[in-house]
Amino acid sequence: MQAYRAAIFHLLDDPARGGESAHAFHPDGLLIVDRGHVIAAGDHATLAPTLGDTPVETLPGRLITPGFIDLHIHFPQTDCIAAHGGQLLEWLETHVFPAEAAFADPAHAAEAAGFFIAELLRNGTTTALVFGSSHKTSAEALFAEALARNMRLIAGKVLMDRHAPAALTDTVESGRRDTLDLIADWAGKGRLGYAVTPRFVVTSSEAQLAMAAEVLAAHPEIWMQTHLAENTAELARVAELYPAAADYLNIFERFGLVGPRSVFAHCIHLDAPAFERMATAGAAAAFCPTSNLFLGSGLFDLKTALSEGVKVGVGTDIGAGTSFSIPHTLGEAYKVGQLRGETLDPFQAFYLATLGGARALGLEDRIGNLAPAKEADFLVLDLAATPLLARRMTAARTLADRLFALTILADDRVVERTYLAGVLHHARGAVPP
Amino acid sequence: MQAYRAAIFHLLDDPARGGESAHAFHPDGLLIVDRGHVIAAGDHATLAPTLGDTPVETLPGRLITPGFIDLHIHFPQTDCIAAHGGQLLEWLETHVFPAEAAFADPAHAAEAAGFFIAELLRNGTTTALVFGSSHKTSAEALFAEALARNMRLIAGKVLMDRHAPAALTDTVESGRRDTLDLIADWAGKGRLGYAVTPRFVVTSSEAQLAMAAEVLAAHPEIWMQTHLAENTAELARVAELYPAAADYLNIFERFGLVGPRSVFAHCIHLDAPAFERMATAGAAAAFCPTSNLFLGSGLFDLKTALSEGVKVGVGTDIGAGTSFSIPHTLGEAYKVGQLRGETLDPFQAFYLATLGGARALGLEDRIGNLAPAKEADFLVLDLAATPLLARRMTAARTLADRLFALTILADDRVVERTYLAGVLHHARGAVPP
Repeated sequence: MQAYRAAIFHLLDDPARGGESAHAFHPDGLLIVDRGHVIAAGDHATLAPTLGDTPVETLPGRLITPGFIDLHIHFPQTDCIAAHGGQLLEWLETHVFPAEAAFADPAHAAEAAGFFIAELLRNGTTTALVFGSSHKTSAEALFAEALARNMRLIAGKVLMDRHAPAALTDTVESGRRDTLDLIADWAGKGRLGYAVTPRFVVTSSEAQLAMAAEVLAAHPEIWMQTHLAENTAELARVAELYPAAADYLNIFERFGLVGPRSVFAHCIHLDAPAFERMATAGAAAAFCPTSNLFLGSGLFDLKTALSEGVKVGVGTDIGAGTSFSIPHTLGEAYKVGQLRGETLDPFQAFYLATLGGARALGLEDRIGNLAPAKEADFLVLDLAATPLLARRMTAARTLADRLFALTILADDRVVERTYLAGVLHHARGAVPP
Repeated sequence: MQAYRAAIFHLLDDPARGGESAHAFHPDGLLIVDRGHVIAAGDHATLAPTLGDTPVETLPGRLITPGFIDLHIHFPQTDCIAAHGGQLLEWLETHVFPAEAAFADPAHAAEAAGFFIAELLRNGTTTALVFGSSHKTSAEALFAEALARNMRLIAGKVLMDRHAPAALTDTVESGRRDTLDLIADWAGKGRLGYAVTPRFVVTSSEAQLAMAAEVLAAHPEIWMQTHLAENTAELARVAELYPAAADYLNIFERFGLVGPRSVFAHCIHLDAPAFERMATAGAAAAFCPTSNLFLGSGLFDLKTALSEGVKVGVGTDIGAGTSFSIPHTLGEAYKVGQLRGETLDPFQAFYLATLGGARALGLEDRIGNLAPAKEADFLVLDLAATPLLARRMTAARTLADRLFALTILADDRVVERTYLAGVLHHARGAVPP
């Protein structure tokens, strides 16, 4: 048993429904952790008498929050972050496919996986839903690194059997075999999960989408992740491939891929009825603002998605995204809202990055906040990590002001420590092992 | 005399006109500086024989560039950076005017000026065109701090005699008197310059705009800075105030405020004929992408502005802007271009931030690159300042790739040293005096 005394902030519900009572803030708080789980989080004055001889570490001026959840990110695209030129389809051909081809090599995949997980932890991300490359090796390397840290991470090898370079394509059968092997070898091991991962409908044949749906139906413990309605040129190609589909979402519906374990990245060019169908099916959307701006894909309609009841989380979408930092991603989400004339509330933003992301994954009983019995994935944040942040926090009058300034001005430096299941796995400035 | 051996990159001309020959890159370069000016910048192999007994500091793995030029920034808005909610007019009322009111106090202004200049230097900005508040004290405090560092900085007290809180308004006469006093006291002292600074046409009466034009005409050594066509609600108010004006720019034209010493921030909602008139008059535009996204103002049409021949630089526009970093601002400029379906070239981006900004100010004979006899305002950049940057630079194949990744991934950490007129004024990690 271990206790940490600092300010504590977390979400208990969706602020759009719960209002003020949807968040808890304890200026002088205490977090009590035992065997990887939260025992309690609340006011120090209330909880201190329950401590007995439990050691307490006092962290003056620090803020404890739940770890962040990155709902969409590509592990093999770490090295093509910030690659110049082109919108989605051109960018994939020019930058992404060559970078992903290198992940056929297990040694390269292993080295990159170590770097990738370290970057997640450096930025305070404790759970991510991750695309591999089409190579089984990529998912294996990533799972091995996450398992070594007891990280709650969900990933899958990409399914892609057409309209891509030969070095990257699988087949219906090889995709099925690799997917089933990976599920058998990794799903449920430690805190790992598997997601069946058809890249998007352009690069998977109808037979492969049907196979993905079969695997998903046969394994109730796994997820499905893909891309949906990201870019207008992509929409045009999809319409050519599926002229009879009522809309883009309908293609996934026809294959039985829209359900409560499905996460669709982007969802930019969807109308309200499509969001309503997603909500009815229990499917989730991953909002990736830095990516959507970087590729010029468009402005996600968060307001409609939420009002239709869609579960929404945020994703960095590395490598089209431009930062591993979820707080920074929330600041960019605010900018997307501003361009739409809509203002993203800071409590809503932190909900999307924590409890909202957990709900999108159906993992709200395990992660997403610091409620008793949750897994102790938490952060110690230093809101004075840079001179500008320190000054801005002094000028801020309210908790909402401070949280918002954090999203606009934060980078990896604000994350002083990252804990996974109660164990310290990143400390700012520490020399990596 | 002092020499620095490192890679060197700078712009010699506008890449849109000069193509490949518009930039110079010396992988093993030498920069020779004497008494605040550049003696030479070129290949080490060529210049080393000329050195004699000049001391050489070798900076392995570092990149020397000219200092960055921030063409639009508000000094008294440092403490309202990252303030939540609202587009331009509401944001001004809620956040900016209260923050600016505090600058009537000389002690507050002096303290804030020290912080502000330190942030500029921490981010590698060596010249800025700066708005004060409407208080003479704000400009005095800023000039004093810049003069103490021999910085080439241009600033002015805001003129604002209507449609603003009483604590912030001046009058035609007090605005004239303060402006003339500031010009007499500071313009031309060290490397300081003065800019007559009507905030925008909503908050200056016709009589005050006429006064501003008189002062500008009477002082050929000074500049004029203001805001133009930033936000649609602002446009509607301006149209109410000036129903007879042909367009927004035409209001400034009628007062004689559009000329070669005029810098207009934003210029978002302008058409090609307006840009053509600006170009003909020799006026410049300041492109402020982080601000334009943060306030949801819109997407600057850089392509048309450049093709019409307008001089363009970039501005952070703190406090609506979200970062003091000009490299980061260039990355956000790329995103604005992507949303417009236009791709900003990295050489063009660095031109806007250095020589382009100097030309916008008519200072290309003094600053903007490292040509012989220029003032020695330069930076030592560490492109491996973060683990992600270090890894990305290794993967990059070309200079353009590295420069572009720098704009997307950079923050203040890449600036290892900032020199003003040959003197070191910022070193990363050093404890401030």
